Amino acid sequence: TQNYRITLLPGDGIGPEIMAVAVDVLKVVGKQFDLKFEFQEALIGGAAIDATGEPLPSVTLDTCRNSDAVLLAAIGGYKWDSLPSNLRPEAGLLGLRAGLGLFANLRPAKILPQLIDASTLKREVVEGVDIMVVRELTGGIYFGKPKGIFATETGEKRGVNTMVYTESEIERIGRVAFEAARKRGGKLCSVDKANVLEVSQLWRDRITQLSTEYPDIELSHLYVDNAAMQLVRAPKQFDTIVTGNLFGDILSDAAAMLTGSIGMLPSASLGASGPGVFEPVHGSAPDIAGLDKANPLAQVLSAAMMLRYGLDQPKAADHIEQAVLQVLEQGDRTGDIISPGKNLLGCRAMGDALILA
Amino acid sequence: TQNYRITLLPGDGIGPEIMAVAVDVLKVVGKQFDLKFEFQEALIGGAAIDATGEPLPSVTLDTCRNSDAVLLAAIGGYKWDSLPSNLRPEAGLLGLRAGLGLFANLRPAKILPQLIDASTLKREVVEGVDIMVVRELTGGIYFGKPKGIFATETGEKRGVNTMVYTESEIERIGRVAFEAARKRGGKLCSVDKANVLEVSQLWRDRITQLSTEYPDIELSHLYVDNAAMQLVRAPKQFDTIVTGNLFGDILSDAAAMLTGSIGMLPSASLGASGPGVFEPVHGSAPDIAGLDKANPLAQVLSAAMMLRYGLDQPKAADHIEQAVLQVLEQGDRTGDIISPGKNLLGCRAMGDALILA
Ligand SMILES: CC(C)[C@H](C(=O)O)[C@@H](O)C(=O)O
Ligand SMILES: CC(C)[C@H](C(=O)O)[C@@H](O)C(=O)O
Repeated sequence: TQNYRITLLPGDGIGPEIMAVAVDVLKVVGKQFDLKFEFQEALIGGAAIDATGEPLPSVTLDTCRNSDAVLLAAIGGYKWDSLPSNLRPEAGLLGLRAGLGLFANLRPAKILPQLIDASTLKREVVEGVDIMVVRELTGGIYFGKPKGIFATETGEKRGVNTMVYTESEIERIGRVAFEAARKRGGKLCSVDKANVLEVSQLWRDRITQLSTEYPDIELSHLYVDNAAMQLVRAPKQFDTIVTGNLFGDILSDAAAMLTGSIGMLPSASLGASGPGVFEPVHGSAPDIAGLDKANPLAQVLSAAMMLRYGLDQPKAADHIEQAVLQVLEQGDRTGDIISPGKNLLGCRAMGDALILA
Repeated sequence: TQNYRITLLPGDGIGPEIMAVAVDVLKVVGKQFDLKFEFQEALIGGAAIDATGEPLPSVTLDTCRNSDAVLLAAIGGYKWDSLPSNLRPEAGLLGLRAGLGLFANLRPAKILPQLIDASTLKREVVEGVDIMVVRELTGGIYFGKPKGIFATETGEKRGVNTMVYTESEIERIGRVAFEAARKRGGKLCSVDKANVLEVSQLWRDRITQLSTEYPDIELSHLYVDNAAMQLVRAPKQFDTIVTGNLFGDILSDAAAMLTGSIGMLPSASLGASGPGVFEPVHGSAPDIAGLDKANPLAQVLSAAMMLRYGLDQPKAADHIEQAVLQVLEQGDRTGDIISPGKNLLGCRAMGDALILA
């Protein structure tokens, strides 16, 4: 028996309901694959603010550090939107990324044949789309200094943030991306704004240099504006994409939306060592929280990513992914992905269907 | 008779061919509306680099300043891609924007019924889409300091760019956007990343404050990642969008691509006073340069925007826009927008069709 200590961060909104389903699925899969999970729950985001005044209490970070992997659901909600930014739920998420050194964010955007009609794009444009966005997660303009709102000499305010990358930061995420491309279609597209930004010139130079170590990978470069266009124009051209924190935030969401069902998309955030964080791409959906309407599949697929990338249990991961495909195949759908002729299930019932699948 | 001095900047690639068509159209329309255009041509981009070593010779900037409006075609090409960034064609464009103080960039993305099938999105998703992106053009991370590539203490390189906005810069572009929304559907969506960036918090605060002066405009805010998603998910929700330089670069290109035919899209760049610059959204397409294959319609529609926003001649602008719709209606198409059953025309022949229309 393999033992794993898993930190659960249910967070806000629909977080607790979808987390409950993922935990049930993990328990069943654990039995089948002889894995024992010890779950420990901790507070983050709005839930943590309400209980402790802080979006990321230090005990939460400690609990995460003392675990083999972290499964996160969703954070945030209107309720906390008017707090100062360093006390908002998002600050908890950024603190978690920084605190655990999670510099590599993997965001797959894959069209599932069963859900292809959910896409707003034409079938022939998105059929077979399978993109992995590798986003740098602990650098760039999210963390660069100076940052803040300052008074100018004339008395007006001036907002400042700084986009910074060092060569070693670029190389580190570059390696993750080249390795990911190697396990996938062998193509890597690096996205930057090197025609305007010096930080992007350094990015492009360093990625180009690194590519000599990966002669089997076909490297291309796109400017971020063109990449946003190409994702809409011809998404099948992409295999693996690597980019900085801000561009990755934007492009991974655009790529996700090509599938038409962000309730289906998981993500992984990994560091050089220590536990990774696995979470759905979607948000906390406060409007349907507690109504047993949420789609738990992205959370369940995040648990699968945890097994694959965090715990090196690819068979158990495969098993979960197969179960998800099977429930879709048999026509089970939550409200966000329902279409005529399919079976509408609640969050919990979808979990039950998965366990039977 | 009204006299106008117009600076023409044909630039690179297909620039000269599409510019020639726009000039012919302007001459004909000028006769009909009793407008006299005095055209003066100047060098920019790669063409200027080849002739003078500089992407924006000072004589070009002077010529532009001494005119009522500037019509630009396209700049850049593989040929100049390996030059240092301050000597590349793009530097000429950035220099022109800064030199003329063109802080407001208007980028319409409108679906034309005749070309709706060119979109990669489903008909019902894009039918009726009519978005105006108002992009700040002389501030933000494009021009903020410090910027450059510096050596760190450990000897590695560090790339830095700075995203900066002052309250007055935000207010200035905000006013343009509120006014634009007023002339359109009365809805304005401001896009930022206020959950992470201080510069965006200032942006959001200032736009919110400004909205009290425009009680007739319905203001909303979106984070840039969500905006990229929503453009793909449900583009009809947007009327006017206002955002900073970098986010505007990305989102206006994504919005443009929703139409499926960027060969059709014009743009306007305006300052507080002095001449504006009017140019197509598409690039210089070096691969088809000189082959009489280019689509001149974005260039012609840029001339219409020049008449409307630069010279206050809305009737002449309407006339050109009607002519474009008419050639499309009669089935005339260049190669980029051809579909079965339509008439394939070259660049010049499309110009002739416009003049007859
Ligand atoms: C909530 C926000 C801080 C976060 C980000 O911008 O990284 C989110 O958009 C994401 O992509 O995970
Ligand atoms: C060519 C480049 C400098 C320019 C920009 O980034 O502004 C272009 O992408 C645009 O949008 O006009």
